[in-house]
Amino acid sequence: MAGTDRTQVAAEAATRGPAIILVRPQLGENIGAAARAMLNFGLTEMRIVKPRGGWPSKSARAMASGADIVLDRARVFATFEEATADLQRVLATTARPRGMVKRVIAPAAAAKQARRADAAGEKLGILFGPERTGLTNDEVAIADAAITIPSNPSYASFNLAQAVLLIGYEWFRAGPMPKSPASAKAERAVATPATRAAILHLFHHLEDELDRGGFLKPPEKRPRMVRNIRNIFTRAHLTDQEVRTLRGVIVGLVGRPPIPKRPRSKVTSP
Amino acid sequence: MAGTDRTQVAAEAATRGPAIILVRPQLGENIGAAARAMLNFGLTEMRIVKPRGGWPSKSARAMASGADIVLDRARVFATFEEATADLQRVLATTARPRGMVKRVIAPAAAAKQARRADAAGEKLGILFGPERTGLTNDEVAIADAAITIPSNPSYASFNLAQAVLLIGYEWFRAGPMPKSPASAKAERAVATPATRAAILHLFHHLEDELDRGGFLKPPEKRPRMVRNIRNIFTRAHLTDQEVRTLRGVIVGLVGRPPIPKRPRSKVTSP
Repeated sequence: MAGTDRTQVAAEAATRGPAIILVRPQLGENIGAAARAMLNFGLTEMRIVKPRGGWPSKSARAMASGADIVLDRARVFATFEEATADLQRVLATTARPRGMVKRVIAPAAAAKQARRADAAGEKLGILFGPERTGLTNDEVAIADAAITIPSNPSYASFNLAQAVLLIGYEWFRAGPMPKSPASAKAERAVATPATRAAILHLFHHLEDELDRGGFLKPPEKRPRMVRNIRNIFTRAHLTDQEVRTLRGVIVGLVGRPPIPKRPRSKVTSP
Repeated sequence: MAGTDRTQVAAEAATRGPAIILVRPQLGENIGAAARAMLNFGLTEMRIVKPRGGWPSKSARAMASGADIVLDRARVFATFEEATADLQRVLATTARPRGMVKRVIAPAAAAKQARRADAAGEKLGILFGPERTGLTNDEVAIADAAITIPSNPSYASFNLAQAVLLIGYEWFRAGPMPKSPASAKAERAVATPATRAAILHLFHHLEDELDRGGFLKPPEKRPRMVRNIRNIFTRAHLTDQEVRTLRGVIVGLVGRPPIPKRPRSKVTSP
């Protein structure tokens, strides 16, 4: 199962998704961290325009541990124009308004555009500027829209890999969710919801023991007390296993097995 | 304009939002990066449980540049229990299913819960485990729900600050929740959520009695049994009144008052 998921994800990543374009990144570490952030969300197409530290980059490689597939496939371009030449849609991340007439969208909207482009067979790229300065106005100008990450206006700086992470996160969220892995199924298997009958038996067991211990007194208060206790356990959405556990707990506390069942005409009425 | 924003954000940050709880973080750098990620989204309440490198931390400070306010206010706790004692709701970030019956929610749903808790005046905390190992099962067990970040199943590891970043992002995006109507207030009056400390006392009372009755045997099974039982009650979101009711139920079942408290060095560890 897990193997299948992996293959599917790899296949999807190989053929789909926006190109992540790092424009003149200054630090190899950030390229490596961006590669990891991409792979976290199934993106594998990285393009790099004139990395300041040259290419290949040891520091990128060291930082990308486990996400080497992204660096292995990364393409390096000498100019911004070459890196964007084949794209049909371009979005530019910007931290601040550029005083230009450009639609500004949030990451979630950008992700939806990227998914739509994918579905339409169009190639879309997302631009990320240099760490210190961001994209130039000319670079932003060729984009169809600017992406701005909503954030605390008095502390809005994101590092390169964080910006890639948030865009990747939204890309992943916008798409079809992967099939639940085998482990989730296993978890469900141990979590069969208890039947109402099993829960009522639990309640009766508990209430019988509480009656014997003289807890549910005075009689006029009994209905309300029983209701309150039942409420607690009802809200927990008990599983079969948990009902058995709780019956064991009662036996453990009172130190004797349940009293043999007596017939009840109205089982729910406390 | 910007000045107004700043003041508003500072005021909001000072009084609201979930506590971000870093449990036994290994690297000061990650604490500093988490502080930045928090401030990016207006969160300022950081709690740190037993940081491996000690506290204060030079490396945290160096990495937090500009987000010093978060570190200045950070509170360090010797134990997990102290760090969570005053919380009324707890969410635990986990990378993998834990084979326990625990609701798993996405960051967006967690953010909505946090906003609702804020609006209701309840204190909510979000747990982040150590970098290498994550939270222990016992730590996850006391949480109301587990948060898992949706991601590429074959490459799902996030570093600590990235996980904090994504949670903070969703918190910010979820925006302030509308004030709860008067009826909700009335309901709250009779239904104050129990603090984590009250719930732990309940657990200890129950477990002490079960130990005395010989129920939690053999010893190698005890931790799992305790966790399963705790999970049931955690999921019920107990109120103060319900905790008192359940303690009465235990007394009613065993026929004696609680054993006088013995000092516990590690209260959660069963």
